Amino acid sequence: MKVVDRVLAGDRLALARLLTKIENNEPEGFSALNALYAHTGNAHLVGVTGAPGTGKSTLVNQLALHLRKSESDIWESAPTVGVVAVDPSSPFTGGAILGDRIRMRDLAGDTGVFIRSMASRGALGGLARATTGVVQALDAAGFDLILIETVGAGQAEVDIARTAHTTIVLSAPGLGDDVQAIKAGILEIADILVVNKADLPSADNTIRALRATLEMARPAQRRPHNWVQDQDMEGEVKETRSWEPPVLATIATKGEGIVELVQAIIEHRNHLQESHEWMDRERSRVRSELDDLLRDRLAERFFTDHPDGRYERAVEQVLARTLSPRQAIQRVIEGKSL
Amino acid sequence: MKVVDRVLAGDRLALARLLTKIENNEPEGFSALNALYAHTGNAHLVGVTGAPGTGKSTLVNQLALHLRKSESDIWESAPTVGVVAVDPSSPFTGGAILGDRIRMRDLAGDTGVFIRSMASRGALGGLARATTGVVQALDAAGFDLILIETVGAGQAEVDIARTAHTTIVLSAPGLGDDVQAIKAGILEIADILVVNKADLPSADNTIRALRATLEMARPAQRRPHNWVQDQDMEGEVKETRSWEPPVLATIATKGEGIVELVQAIIEHRNHLQESHEWMDRERSRVRSELDDLLRDRLAERFFTDHPDGRYERAVEQVLARTLSPRQAIQRVIEGKSL
Repeated sequence: MKVVDRVLAGDRLALARLLTKIENNEPEGFSALNALYAHTGNAHLVGVTGAPGTGKSTLVNQLALHLRKSESDIWESAPTVGVVAVDPSSPFTGGAILGDRIRMRDLAGDTGVFIRSMASRGALGGLARATTGVVQALDAAGFDLILIETVGAGQAEVDIARTAHTTIVLSAPGLGDDVQAIKAGILEIADILVVNKADLPSADNTIRALRATLEMARPAQRRPHNWVQDQDMEGEVKETRSWEPPVLATIATKGEGIVELVQAIIEHRNHLQESHEWMDRERSRVRSELDDLLRDRLAERFFTDHPDGRYERAVEQVLARTLSPRQAIQRVIEGKSL
Repeated sequence: MKVVDRVLAGDRLALARLLTKIENNEPEGFSALNALYAHTGNAHLVGVTGAPGTGKSTLVNQLALHLRKSESDIWESAPTVGVVAVDPSSPFTGGAILGDRIRMRDLAGDTGVFIRSMASRGALGGLARATTGVVQALDAAGFDLILIETVGAGQAEVDIARTAHTTIVLSAPGLGDDVQAIKAGILEIADILVVNKADLPSADNTIRALRATLEMARPAQRRPHNWVQDQDMEGEVKETRSWEPPVLATIATKGEGIVELVQAIIEHRNHLQESHEWMDRERSRVRSELDDLLRDRLAERFFTDHPDGRYERAVEQVLARTLSPRQAIQRVIEGKSL
């Protein structure tokens, strides 16, 4: 049986091997993804991001555990859950592998959960591209919900989380997050805000600060939505209602608040589908993936078509400062002497 | 007088306006950068990165203050200092502008310091490209040392810091950094490790953990370098010595440990120039900038040359899942029907 058929038939070992090929940029991985792509589009992609120290891994594990026990009209039985932990770990620590083992303990023996940690390799953007492929493979393999956990609150991590249907932004008391969250520019991408470690003394302050910031951040023209919300007993008004990101409190280590978080995820999914935003997000994800691929392929083709070393000569000219980087690339593209 | 001449003559207002044009991707900014590029290459670029809550901004301000008072053989008088704070702030908070004002207070009236906060706008990579241009303009304007502060410990921020000559990675006790730093994969890019907030009770643990991790991380074949170091009275041996990243303790709010940090920066600069690593880092920065520019220009040219809507049709086909993203881009590039 081919790898694609085995993945579609639920063969977990074949899936794990395929993910490794995708992560390593192997041609076999790409051709399998081509064949699998027609089977994607069913999974609910949920991004979880936030600063280090907020307890993301623990929360994601708890979410997976609770989702496996949850009931909803959306899924016939408890949803199967894929977890993709985007973990730019050091090449020398093997952190990703160790992380997988620690994580597997809680969820061991449940074939409805599949966990994958991504190690960062190479340049900016490489991680994002590999993650896209891994998520697509899990989607095709039939996982109902895929949790994409991104470490840090950096630009690349925010971009990865942004491509999800539902983005959860995690804070914790005492990290100065009220300010940090704004700085990191992640508040406006949050569909659900979670203050974890809610048993810490300053948790109430963090929750209040987040709510106040959300209130300020909401553009004036959007304010009347609260009023529309009050009236939403009349079917059609409800459909045009915009989403107000809730601020939830959790204590992930004790499993507290997770049921409410699962409920918020389900409500956001319903909102996306009623408001046609689901399709908008699909479209923007596809555009961003096609943009990346187009640029990759154009650059590859350029080097294949022009094996005359002009790029290397451009590097030398820029180092000697006889040309600026932009002038050098202009000459490289136009085939002028260098 | 043209903007380029005014910037070269030390006109700070002209410089500030040029940086805005560069940040906004205006053609005037690019043409000025072309003209300024021949004047770059003198500044020592120092990246400062670390997780939120480690006190980066305070440390960077203190560094600027101390550098202005420092003495060294490298500079004829106290070095002039540029600060570029890469701050992916929310579009609605105007955080960057407020940040500038708060920062300017400490350093007000000193024309030897110039501070610029970058706001994040748009897609992944946009911030990195704008930062490159801003740093080049400051370099051409004659700043001796440019501090590049990146918020967060994400992939994009790490990549920005990595292009510096000297990269400082900041930790603070109680953030679980010993593990987080490894997870974020930033230990191996650090030339200098700083544990800030060293007056907190668990600071010693953090310092010990970092030193232990460095020890483990150092590949076995590099271990004998300690021995080479002991022997470095004989000129030539010293030249081949590799750099052992020091772990320094600071209390930035009180200015403690900053003198030692300035000293470590100067020592690292000397190391880079003695070992020819300075040129290696220049080369890798130039390559990375040229790669980005080449891909940008190739994509622009492709859309200009093919205004037939084939890309839009590809988006629809991928959304309908009749083609995978890779198959669709293959057809776009080869001009096949879509």
